Amino acid sequence: MNPLKIIKIGGNIIDDKSRLQSFLKDFSTISGAKILIHGGGKIASELGAKMGISPKMHEGRRITDAETLDLVTMVYAGLINKNLVAQLQMQHSNAIGFSGADANLITATKRPAKVVDYGLVGDVAISGVQTDTLSGLLKLSLIPVFSPITHDGKGQLYNTNADTIASVLAMAMSKSYEVELIYCFDKKGVLEDVNDDNSLIKEINTENYKSLKERGAIADGMLPKLETAFQALSHDVKAVRIVQAEEVANPLAGTFIQK
Amino acid sequence: MNPLKIIKIGGNIIDDKSRLQSFLKDFSTISGAKILIHGGGKIASELGAKMGISPKMHEGRRITDAETLDLVTMVYAGLINKNLVAQLQMQHSNAIGFSGADANLITATKRPAKVVDYGLVGDVAISGVQTDTLSGLLKLSLIPVFSPITHDGKGQLYNTNADTIASVLAMAMSKSYEVELIYCFDKKGVLEDVNDDNSLIKEINTENYKSLKERGAIADGMLPKLETAFQALSHDVKAVRIVQAEEVANPLAGTFIQK
Repeated sequence: MNPLKIIKIGGNIIDDKSRLQSFLKDFSTISGAKILIHGGGKIASELGAKMGISPKMHEGRRITDAETLDLVTMVYAGLINKNLVAQLQMQHSNAIGFSGADANLITATKRPAKVVDYGLVGDVAISGVQTDTLSGLLKLSLIPVFSPITHDGKGQLYNTNADTIASVLAMAMSKSYEVELIYCFDKKGVLEDVNDDNSLIKEINTENYKSLKERGAIADGMLPKLETAFQALSHDVKAVRIVQAEEVANPLAGTFIQK
Repeated sequence: MNPLKIIKIGGNIIDDKSRLQSFLKDFSTISGAKILIHGGGKIASELGAKMGISPKMHEGRRITDAETLDLVTMVYAGLINKNLVAQLQMQHSNAIGFSGADANLITATKRPAKVVDYGLVGDVAISGVQTDTLSGLLKLSLIPVFSPITHDGKGQLYNTNADTIASVLAMAMSKSYEVELIYCFDKKGVLEDVNDDNSLIKEINTENYKSLKERGAIADGMLPKLETAFQALSHDVKAVRIVQAEEVANPLAGTFIQK
């Protein structure tokens, strides 16, 4: 099977123009088949404020109502996605920007309203990825760039978590490719001590994971990322890495997640 | 050569929800390879007003400054394009939405500043269309849906006239396909008398064109459309038609432009 790198960047990189430019240059040097998934960033909230759309929250959770969905569709799938694609083209990377609706690539189901109704938020599953079409696009030497917008196949777009899209794409594509899933991060990887850049944990596996959690080395935002990583590994994803965005082109950098 | 239909819809259809839905249903029934190009509509101006972006005009001409470009990139390539794609997917049409930056499909050059500097407006030419990539996408049975945004290949996006994109795509693709270029319109086609729907001119050719102009049957907005149509025909486009959007699936409807 051919290798495929699936790389996710978050809003923190999108929001920092010079950091983004340098990331896209490094990304362009990575050889072989690759897919980029990007998150949102502050631009949507800033534009929303200008347009009089205030963030809807419920118990600390963001709710996507119809006008918020329009806003994130514009900003994520339009402004951010097309500028990323244009900048990659400048680096001679043949990028092609997508939402999940395009070519029906990622269908999602509305997140069930339990304690909280998150609104127009989509949950994605391996079965929702059109792997044949995506493979066909990769065979044309194109570099798919996904915004975190999906659809239900019935005309409804959904706001969708970019980390989850990355992991679901990785799992789905593992039937035809040897996939490495790479989460870009602000730090050098997972750190024993978040304040000490020299405390990089080189490998996390199911054995040391538990003790790292107990020691408090892994907490907060990193926990769901690692759960997603272990899930990916148990669904035939070859490798998962958490790496500083600045080191994306270094195949040895960051924290390697192993089964 | 295989047939390819290149169909352009304007903002008037985008702005009318029920008319748009019905158009997309009809569009979905058209068999064979096809490409849709869409214009803008009022949504960009309305959102611009909310965001405090006022339309920049110079002697009646719209100027695209940096914030206006961001606005139209969001609205055309994001909000409108992705909703069109999602609605076509609902009709089981495997639509895939593009700006010209995606897969480098359409590069443009900045319109030269002569009497008026139009700002970030792109002029497109046949040589700017990546016909091989576009053919590759059509061979995957995908239906490209173009927003009127292009790029210069050096990281800059451009606002671009949708009528011109349609005609340039038609001319470029004519080397590999038997292309019919269809401009959707509010009226039944070109009318002898704009107030009389029964006065449809069934055919306009280089012979009757001059007399129609002299009689005043063709004027104003229709003139550039017809000039573009004749240009397309002289660059190997097989057929050009101006048709009421409601009749897009009827191959005999509208005004046929002939050499």
